[in-house]
Amino acid sequence: MVIPESHTDILEKPAFASVATIGPDGGPQNNPVWFGWDGSNVRFSQITTRQKYRNLNADPRVSFSILDPDDPYRYIEIRGVMIGIEDDPDRTFINSMAKKYLGLDTYPWHRPGDERVVMVVEPVHTTVMG
Amino acid sequence: MVIPESHTDILEKPAFASVATIGPDGGPQNNPVWFGWDGSNVRFSQITTRQKYRNLNADPRVSFSILDPDDPYRYIEIRGVMIGIEDDPDRTFINSMAKKYLGLDTYPWHRPGDERVVMVVEPVHTTVMG
Repeated sequence: MVIPESHTDILEKPAFASVATIGPDGGPQNNPVWFGWDGSNVRFSQITTRQKYRNLNADPRVSFSILDPDDPYRYIEIRGVMIGIEDDPDRTFINSMAKKYLGLDTYPWHRPGDERVVMVVEPVHTTVMG
Repeated sequence: MVIPESHTDILEKPAFASVATIGPDGGPQNNPVWFGWDGSNVRFSQITTRQKYRNLNADPRVSFSILDPDDPYRYIEIRGVMIGIEDDPDRTFINSMAKKYLGLDTYPWHRPGDERVVMVVEPVHTTVMG
């Protein structure tokens, strides 16, 4: 799956993604996350106690709605499937997100005991506007 | 269902809502919309040819993810159920959205033949941050 080149710039910006997953009752759940893009997959950090983590383990389908922070009438929706969960024991990934979104080398809101993982989502379909 | 008073201000701002619905395959779909809030229900405009319109007729469950435009670390998620579809023949509702989001009296992107309706969603559950 290739993301339209016209909209890949949005993925490099510190834009928030609203990530929709399927809840235990089959209905949608939706909330904003930081995300990373490596040219092939979308990654986002999760604590393993979160509902989204449980949702994606039960149903790996996900949809990201991402507005261009510089032009809200430009957006990309990326639908995909979670293809893997990576450990993040040294918090390398969440620290890279702190860099992207806060300009900080270290994620400032880590709490002892939080078990962080990285959800890896392969794009399957995109829609764009603008 | 009462929206936490701490976060109702977000609903009055020209914030975009990412609206997640269930697609024909049971997976999530997600994209930004303008919305209105009347103190009880969330309303948004749709063209009847849109996938979201078809989705909500098949499964009325929806989840809005709404960031505070003045503080992205503050948000509200509103999960709800579509309880009605209202006609908008005079474009009263879409014009009110143009007022909220663009400061214009008339929605500038109407195309002849577009059949506009208003999806009315009753909140069932909310989550907030910030």
